Amino acid sequence: MGKYGDEGDQLLFKILNSGDFLKDVSAKNLDEGAKATLTKLSEKGLKYDLTVPFARYVAMNRHELAMPFKRFQIQPVWRADRPQKGRYREFYQCDADVVGTDSLLCEAEIVLMLQEVFEKLGLSEYQIKINNRKILSGIAEVIGSKGEESSLCIAIDKLDKIGKDKVEEELLDCGFSKTSIESLQPFFNIPNDLDNSLLFLKSWLKGSEIGTQGILEIEETLGLLSAFGTDLTKLSLDPTLARGLSYYTGAIFEVKALNVQIGSISGGGRYDNLTGTFGLSGVSGVGISLGVDRIYDVLEELDLFPKDSAESTKVLLIALDKNAYYDSLPMLNGIRKHGISSEIYPEPAKLKKQFDYANKKGIPYVIVIGSEEVKTQKFSLKNMQSGEQEMYDFETIIEKLKS
Amino acid sequence: MGKYGDEGDQLLFKILNSGDFLKDVSAKNLDEGAKATLTKLSEKGLKYDLTVPFARYVAMNRHELAMPFKRFQIQPVWRADRPQKGRYREFYQCDADVVGTDSLLCEAEIVLMLQEVFEKLGLSEYQIKINNRKILSGIAEVIGSKGEESSLCIAIDKLDKIGKDKVEEELLDCGFSKTSIESLQPFFNIPNDLDNSLLFLKSWLKGSEIGTQGILEIEETLGLLSAFGTDLTKLSLDPTLARGLSYYTGAIFEVKALNVQIGSISGGGRYDNLTGTFGLSGVSGVGISLGVDRIYDVLEELDLFPKDSAESTKVLLIALDKNAYYDSLPMLNGIRKHGISSEIYPEPAKLKKQFDYANKKGIPYVIVIGSEEVKTQKFSLKNMQSGEQEMYDFETIIEKLKS
Repeated sequence: MGKYGDEGDQLLFKILNSGDFLKDVSAKNLDEGAKATLTKLSEKGLKYDLTVPFARYVAMNRHELAMPFKRFQIQPVWRADRPQKGRYREFYQCDADVVGTDSLLCEAEIVLMLQEVFEKLGLSEYQIKINNRKILSGIAEVIGSKGEESSLCIAIDKLDKIGKDKVEEELLDCGFSKTSIESLQPFFNIPNDLDNSLLFLKSWLKGSEIGTQGILEIEETLGLLSAFGTDLTKLSLDPTLARGLSYYTGAIFEVKALNVQIGSISGGGRYDNLTGTFGLSGVSGVGISLGVDRIYDVLEELDLFPKDSAESTKVLLIALDKNAYYDSLPMLNGIRKHGISSEIYPEPAKLKKQFDYANKKGIPYVIVIGSEEVKTQKFSLKNMQSGEQEMYDFETIIEKLKS
Repeated sequence: MGKYGDEGDQLLFKILNSGDFLKDVSAKNLDEGAKATLTKLSEKGLKYDLTVPFARYVAMNRHELAMPFKRFQIQPVWRADRPQKGRYREFYQCDADVVGTDSLLCEAEIVLMLQEVFEKLGLSEYQIKINNRKILSGIAEVIGSKGEESSLCIAIDKLDKIGKDKVEEELLDCGFSKTSIESLQPFFNIPNDLDNSLLFLKSWLKGSEIGTQGILEIEETLGLLSAFGTDLTKLSLDPTLARGLSYYTGAIFEVKALNVQIGSISGGGRYDNLTGTFGLSGVSGVGISLGVDRIYDVLEELDLFPKDSAESTKVLLIALDKNAYYDSLPMLNGIRKHGISSEIYPEPAKLKKQFDYANKKGIPYVIVIGSEEVKTQKFSLKNMQSGEQEMYDFETIIEKLKS
């Protein structure tokens, strides 16, 4: 509690204390309401993300860790949210972070990592949006609202959802002057492509030291990526990108899958003082979080899972009678020793029943075994899709199943 | 709630309802106590095991599943227990079950699976205890307490912990007659080895049909294992094995790691009607659960983790200056393309600092890169353990790192 803001506190699942959880609760507490009574009923919660636990781990183990320290972590987290598509109460995050260095190589390697992940998953239609908190600070400065980048971020973050007019209204409500909002107009006309947007911002923010610094950081990151020989076509600069979380101090990342209506599938950034709340200040870190369930949803919707990914068994052994059933077991063992997923129907049932099982389970090959096959050690391998069926010895069957 | 007995209900973590969780709680409820008020505060809980959720899944998807249905599942579960060695509030279970068949092949394959798992983990000192609930029923019958096997199980299950005298006391308290307890004496003298214990039980239980059936089931399971060509030396029959859980109706399994003071590392058995509570009766299943964290503890205590399992990076690139740093990135990319874990120190820092990092992180190889190396494309590969250091071209370095 207290690490994720008010909304986070609400969305954090609380676990009821064990045993007599009511023992410290009085009728007076009931009148004071849920918020005031919470600590009497609950002292544990479910993990909300992997970043804060990671920060705590780093702070607790600061003396043992080789800095810069890198780690990845894949684990479920929970949010007490109303479930809907792309928003689950329980979901898996996959996080990768580096702490203990300011080097922008880490930012570059995050981009490399994202591109490699999505390439391996076969997802080619996506966009990596990058931004830098310092650019937002620079914008605040050049519009005459220096230091107000937090409110600016919060309003700008909603641009996609509520549109330009509402963002301007919200800025007015937050105390931004009309002159400031007028000076912000170039912001809504920033070119889309990477090179031109950088040129545009460079010129617009040249009066702000911090803004210029933000642009230089992005340029250095891109330079490192180019030195790696990386294709930059998936990258775009999005100066509206703020990702709500107020702890980002440098780079900000977000990945969107194209052609699928779902929130971002990955997000992250650099935070200069995340471990501060656990008593270790001055440690900079940068990280990325992948939303595993959303990525699953995207792959499912775009039909990108390999057709054979639902295939659990490659070959089913079908025994004609009890003797053949026993005699098939050493063969089953032999097939498995070659790393081929295989099973025998667990009893010498009627042929139809055994074939139905193979069909319903989508098993691509079947070997029928009777006393003749046991004697000759020649077995007929049936391809369940084509219906083809031929006799082979054991070694040839292994070759066929492996190819 | 209500699926794991009274103790399970207590050990099940409950999640506080979201929002105003006190809205249905009155001062009168406070007087009624925690148990009566629970449903007003909490309607969700944390998974206690993977078996009951699996039974629910099977019942809900009965029409889509190809029977017999097999699945494995690896996931955290939670118990509101006092944490101690081998007993954690959060731990991972790895379950494998087959439902929809009575075939004892499933029992045999569970033994095969266990033996393969522990062989792969390098754990050779363990024992697979097997038993059959029907043997316990048979014992109840031959001692003249037919149908009392539940109480008999509960008492016998404590034999290891409280000893023979206390077990007999408990049996008396439960209403077993002195004659019954006297007739139970052979039980405490059952031979240790598999063949003799079977012979012994066969003779002792010959008057009980169900007991004889239990022995036949074990013999058939062993026969199937022999047909597979399986070594049976890890197996022993333990007629005291009941594993508390009252839902086992046939085979009962338990695995103990030898030479380590820790509870069982795996357990399971056959249950004839697990899905009954979810409205699907007559579906028999058999399964095994592996305690992943305990197995981790055992491997750690016996020092069985491979020495290089903590090695995360195989080679560190150390750049002498900023130019060399940029020039090293394509090489880093090239090494990674060969599947070799590699990193570059994220800035051209002082040599000592970079080497200290390699040492602290246990990185076995280092490549130092300066302008000369970039020019000649010959790089010195240093073995950090032996201190050896030689110049190679890129291809040779890849070969050396791969071997």
